[in-house]
Amino acid sequence: MSVLYDRVALIGLGLIASSMAHGLRRHGLAREIVGTARSTETRAIAAEDGLVDRVAESPEEAVRGADLVVLAVPVGAMGAVAAAIGPHLAPSATLTDVGSVKRAVVADVAPHLPETVHFIPGHPLAGTEHSGPRSGFAELFENRWCLLLPPPGVDEGALSKLRRLWEALGSNVDLMDPDHHDLVLAVTSHTPHLIAYTMVGVADDLRRVTDSEVIKFSAAGFRDFTRIAASDPVMWRDVFLMNKDATLEILGRFTEELFALQRAIRTGDGAHLEEYFTRTRAIRRGIIEAGQDTAAPDFGRGSAKP
Amino acid sequence: MSVLYDRVALIGLGLIASSMAHGLRRHGLAREIVGTARSTETRAIAAEDGLVDRVAESPEEAVRGADLVVLAVPVGAMGAVAAAIGPHLAPSATLTDVGSVKRAVVADVAPHLPETVHFIPGHPLAGTEHSGPRSGFAELFENRWCLLLPPPGVDEGALSKLRRLWEALGSNVDLMDPDHHDLVLAVTSHTPHLIAYTMVGVADDLRRVTDSEVIKFSAAGFRDFTRIAASDPVMWRDVFLMNKDATLEILGRFTEELFALQRAIRTGDGAHLEEYFTRTRAIRRGIIEAGQDTAAPDFGRGSAKP
Repeated sequence: MSVLYDRVALIGLGLIASSMAHGLRRHGLAREIVGTARSTETRAIAAEDGLVDRVAESPEEAVRGADLVVLAVPVGAMGAVAAAIGPHLAPSATLTDVGSVKRAVVADVAPHLPETVHFIPGHPLAGTEHSGPRSGFAELFENRWCLLLPPPGVDEGALSKLRRLWEALGSNVDLMDPDHHDLVLAVTSHTPHLIAYTMVGVADDLRRVTDSEVIKFSAAGFRDFTRIAASDPVMWRDVFLMNKDATLEILGRFTEELFALQRAIRTGDGAHLEEYFTRTRAIRRGIIEAGQDTAAPDFGRGSAKP
Repeated sequence: MSVLYDRVALIGLGLIASSMAHGLRRHGLAREIVGTARSTETRAIAAEDGLVDRVAESPEEAVRGADLVVLAVPVGAMGAVAAAIGPHLAPSATLTDVGSVKRAVVADVAPHLPETVHFIPGHPLAGTEHSGPRSGFAELFENRWCLLLPPPGVDEGALSKLRRLWEALGSNVDLMDPDHHDLVLAVTSHTPHLIAYTMVGVADDLRRVTDSEVIKFSAAGFRDFTRIAASDPVMWRDVFLMNKDATLEILGRFTEELFALQRAIRTGDGAHLEEYFTRTRAIRRGIIEAGQDTAAPDFGRGSAKP
C-alpha cells in the first residue's frame, strides 16, 4: 500500500484513533502521524508508547500542515474542537470524524470550517468495550463497515482518497446520508446499548438482594448485556444526547412492544409469545446469511462445538 | 468415571437432553440410555443417529425400570408428563428435570410422584441458540453451573449421586431453593431474553423502512441481541408464562429505570447518563473477575486482538 497522506492529525487518542494509528503505520498510509488528546495523561502515554510520531499539546498545533485531520473525540466535543482548529486547518485539507452520530456532528462542525477544507464525516462501525490510548489495535477495522457521509458537491478526489484509506485499514466502505445514518444506528446500536445499560443497572440494584449470584450465574444471558454496557460512559452519554430524536423514537417503539409482551405474560397469552419469538428467530438467520456473525453456538463459549 | 446409573431415561430430546446423552456416553455414566420425544420426527432422528441406546414410543415406556429419569421438555409440559409417568416410575428412582423455572415445575410435578421416588429438580445453566436432537454436544455443560433444588428432607444418597453425575459432565453444582432460583434467573436470564426478543422484534418492523441495513450493520451491538433472541420459541414461551411473577417484577424495575434514562435523554441530563453508565461498567469487571467471561474484546470478533 502506498502513502495516501503526508501528515495525518488524530484529535483524541482513544480506542478508534489509537487503532487508526496502529493501522496507518502497519500499512504505511501516512508519512507522519501527529496526535493529541485533551488529557495530559493520555498525551503522556501516547508519547511514552510512541503511539504516534509526534504528540501535539493542542488540536490547533496538531492540525497545522496536516492533509488529513481525524476528529476522534466524544460527539459532544466535536463542535468545540472544530471551532478551535478551524482557523489553523491547511487549505484543501480533508477533515473527517469517527463519531457515532452524524446529523448533530455535521451541524456542529461544518460552520467552523474554511471553504477550502473537504469535510467528509465518517463512522467506522467497529469497537470493543475497552477504551483509552492503549486499547487500540491495527485489526479493529478489518471486515467491519465504515460509513462515509459526504455532503452534496463533495470533492470526488478527496472522497476517493479517504475511501481508499478505510479500505486499506480493512473496512468495507458504504455511503449514507446523515439522517438515515442516525435512524439506522439508533436501531442497530444506540437503543440496544441503552437497553443493555438499563438491564445491567437493574441487576446492580438487585445484587444487594442476591449477593454475587447475578454475576455468578451471568452466563445465562445477562453476560452478553454486560459486555455492551461496559463501553465508554462519556462517549455513550454524548451519543444519546446528540441522537436524541431517533433514539427516543426507537425507544418509544421498543416500550410499546415490550408492554404488549408484558401483557401477554400477565394474561397468559402463550400464542402471542410463541408467534413473536418465532419471528425474531428468523432475523438471526438473516444476520448469519449476511456474514455478520457465525452460526457457532456462543453461550457455551469455551465449550462450544466446532 | 464409573457407572452411576443403570438406566437413564431422557424425556424430551432437545439441546439439553441430547447433550446429556453425548456426555453420559463419553464419560460412561450409564449402562443404558433410553430416550423419548413427543414428535415422531425427533424419535426417528434419535433412532437413526443412535443418539440413545433405545428410543421409547412414550414417556411411560421410557421410564420403566429407569433409576434416573430426566424431564427435558418445555416447562409448561412438565406437569402432564409427570402425571403420565407417575404410575410407571421404578421404586426409589431419582426424578430430575432441567427446566429454567423451578417453583411452578415443582408445584406441577410433585403431586404426581409416588412417595418412594426421589424428586430433585435441577437446572443446568447451559445452552446455545440452537435446538433439537441434533444440536447437542458432550461439552455443553463443561465449566457451566448446574443448580440443584433438593426439597427439605431429600435423600442424601440420591442427591449426592445426581450431583456426581453433573460434576462428571463438567458442571459446577450449587444448591438453591426454587423461589430464590426464579428471582435470580429472572434477572440473569429471563428478563434479558425478553428484552432481546423485543428489540429484535422492533428492528424487524423497521427493516421494512431500512431494508437490509439493520442486518448489514448489526455488528454495532444489535447482533448480540439477535443471538439471544434466536433461542427456542416454545421453551421461552413457557418460561415467561411459568415464571410470571418474578419476570413481571424485574420487568417493572427495568421499565422504571428505562423511563428515567429516557427522561434524562429528553431533558439533556448528561450527568445522570454518565453516572449510570459508569456504574454499569464496574459490573462487567465483576463478571470477568468471577471467571464467567474473558476480557478479550468481542465486538470485533474475528479481528480481536489476542
